[in-house]
Amino acid sequence: VASTSWVPVPDGSPFPVQNLPYGVFSRGDEDPRVGVAIGAYVLDLAPLAASEGADFASVFHTPSLNPFMGLGRQAWHAVRHWLTERLRDESYRSLVEPELVPLDQVRLHMPFAVGDYVDFYASEHHATNLGRILRPGEPPLTPNWKHLPIGYHGRAGTVRLSDTSVRRPCGQAKAPDAERPVFGPSTRLDFEAEVGFVIGTPTLPGERVGVDQVRDHVFGVVLVNDWSARDIQAWEYRPLGPFLGKSFLTSLSPWVVPLDALEPAMIAPPAQDPEPLDHLRGTADFGLDLDLEVRINGAVVSRPRYAQMYWTPGQMLAHLTSGGAALRTGDLYASGTVSGPTPAEYGSLVELSAGGARPLALADGSTRTFLEDGDEVTISATAPAGAGGVRLGFGAVTGEVRPADVPAAPVAAQ
Amino acid sequence: VASTSWVPVPDGSPFPVQNLPYGVFSRGDEDPRVGVAIGAYVLDLAPLAASEGADFASVFHTPSLNPFMGLGRQAWHAVRHWLTERLRDESYRSLVEPELVPLDQVRLHMPFAVGDYVDFYASEHHATNLGRILRPGEPPLTPNWKHLPIGYHGRAGTVRLSDTSVRRPCGQAKAPDAERPVFGPSTRLDFEAEVGFVIGTPTLPGERVGVDQVRDHVFGVVLVNDWSARDIQAWEYRPLGPFLGKSFLTSLSPWVVPLDALEPAMIAPPAQDPEPLDHLRGTADFGLDLDLEVRINGAVVSRPRYAQMYWTPGQMLAHLTSGGAALRTGDLYASGTVSGPTPAEYGSLVELSAGGARPLALADGSTRTFLEDGDEVTISATAPAGAGGVRLGFGAVTGEVRPADVPAAPVAAQ
Repeated sequence: VASTSWVPVPDGSPFPVQNLPYGVFSRGDEDPRVGVAIGAYVLDLAPLAASEGADFASVFHTPSLNPFMGLGRQAWHAVRHWLTERLRDESYRSLVEPELVPLDQVRLHMPFAVGDYVDFYASEHHATNLGRILRPGEPPLTPNWKHLPIGYHGRAGTVRLSDTSVRRPCGQAKAPDAERPVFGPSTRLDFEAEVGFVIGTPTLPGERVGVDQVRDHVFGVVLVNDWSARDIQAWEYRPLGPFLGKSFLTSLSPWVVPLDALEPAMIAPPAQDPEPLDHLRGTADFGLDLDLEVRINGAVVSRPRYAQMYWTPGQMLAHLTSGGAALRTGDLYASGTVSGPTPAEYGSLVELSAGGARPLALADGSTRTFLEDGDEVTISATAPAGAGGVRLGFGAVTGEVRPADVPAAPVAAQ
Repeated sequence: VASTSWVPVPDGSPFPVQNLPYGVFSRGDEDPRVGVAIGAYVLDLAPLAASEGADFASVFHTPSLNPFMGLGRQAWHAVRHWLTERLRDESYRSLVEPELVPLDQVRLHMPFAVGDYVDFYASEHHATNLGRILRPGEPPLTPNWKHLPIGYHGRAGTVRLSDTSVRRPCGQAKAPDAERPVFGPSTRLDFEAEVGFVIGTPTLPGERVGVDQVRDHVFGVVLVNDWSARDIQAWEYRPLGPFLGKSFLTSLSPWVVPLDALEPAMIAPPAQDPEPLDHLRGTADFGLDLDLEVRINGAVVSRPRYAQMYWTPGQMLAHLTSGGAALRTGDLYASGTVSGPTPAEYGSLVELSAGGARPLALADGSTRTFLEDGDEVTISATAPAGAGGVRLGFGAVTGEVRPADVPAAPVAAQ
């Protein structure tokens, strides 16, 4: 069997045969259904599987990955093997080719129904930078930070597909020198470049998932932009954490990259000091060698490397389930902002502009402290995909900032 | 039409004809479906509606209130009117009586599928007490507290029906004088007596709900026990708020009391100083005159009055949607612990025992600082339901504490 596909894959395509990410697509007014990206095409899985009488055909004829993801790891392996064979072995060409739809003819949909959405805070560099900005004069990392992966629940109902424009939110904020807060459009709108992990195999209440069991439960990986209104967040977050500052929109990349495709990107996790407690330790734990890229209006402003994250995907999942919380198919947990030690690797604008104190110069000569209306933010990523320097790509997550919809005062009288 | 029902309603029954709360029930191995509680019976709505050819019959033949709740306020009114007529006018007796099922023959199910779950912090007394316990030496209320209803997202996947026993969670905690945290069973397991509001009518992203529009969106009201592990929470909650300390189980009462049934319980909201900003003001805002009762092992330990809550249901909803977050049918927002000014009105054990410093004496002569294995906590409530001193009741939310399931060390080696 060939190492490449008989489907033409252009140089630099994010979707070589080593990737095979899953998404939900439609063409014209057809029903949305599950497909796999290969080169410049999406492979329509339901008719291909049905034509072979495969017993898993029905899970692809739905507008969501949830039924397939819920089948569990053995089924994911079987389908990936089946697909790889058909896309590498040219003898399948006449069978498969009729089900290839050009990517530029399809509309992509939200790939899965989100259960609970948890956002972690797993980058030491990001947490340190944010601590300095939000709590000047205090130690930037709280005393718990190196003992557990800190996380909180976000609003699952505001997780949407890439290309959803972000309406600048209104909210309450208080300037440091003001006596009272005001309600109005956020003036410190930001992005956060994150990596998200999608749960396939559910668990029962009380069932803990060990660090080494992450591959049994995580189906795949997406990119996440956790849009944030820093002024709203700063005023509201004590003592119960972020709420409206982060629940107006969270954007996802449209293709779910199988965790199996990231095998060549799995690397030794970073050294952790102090050594974590038993429930956060494994013998097969891994970090991920993903290179992210953040663009504002088309120009790269940052290249965060996921390899530098302190807490691993396995540790985040082990922590999340350590108290007995059940997992549901479609649950999503994200890493928190991916930031490295230097400004060229910061994954949010609040870090890139030092909390607004040092405007970031863009390629067009303008500067940004925070996002302006009309700005477009795009996050993409690549990862090693095997021999010969092949790399795979994530579908980008992008969004454009639209002006606030300011309420006529008072709202109640409308 | 009579002011009472021809269905016998025992004195002191929580379910007079003025209540008519909705739930999901089954008998034997029948399919779960929607019913209404009246006296000692549940009325099986689907066959009754079908026998009359009512166009809303299909929404009751489902194991969830979501389809009915999603129809919106006009449909809720129409069905309540239809039901009230049939249960008050004895001429309907022969039609209705065959569909009455004795409550003691049915099994109750989770009444709706929870979308997002938000927990507020709307009692000034509770927030002050907790602030004193968690942050001694600092002002108990954070500077934002009187300007906005503080809230956070909880884990929707761990919201379960009353009578689900609560497994004592394990987690990380650090004693104040310890150098490092330890992982083990929580030693400070607590309850929180809360009131929850269930969203019926959804909104689009960006659509704000004004304070006075709460009745268009809130279908009904339930009781909530937001079980909390205070030691886990205290160690994890800075800076992103509660996470595992509150995501092992949240229990709901089985009957959703329509907001319309609480009309006689609507009272002027408490005075607020400072006056809230425009987006948190209305001209028809209301508080709720609900009397809660908390029992441990059958004996009353507290009687919190919801009338004393600082932030109103309308203000919480207006705040939640002020940044543009959409509502989905089935979203749940809870008030946070209902506590009054005196210990006899505290809605959590951490307050009743002054953070564990002053053990609470129970009726059997034992004392509690926090919950012990085998303890049963039950929260119930009543409200004025109209003329003649009639009161309605909420179905109780109850749960028994089971011992922790302590992992063999290390988890990863299992």
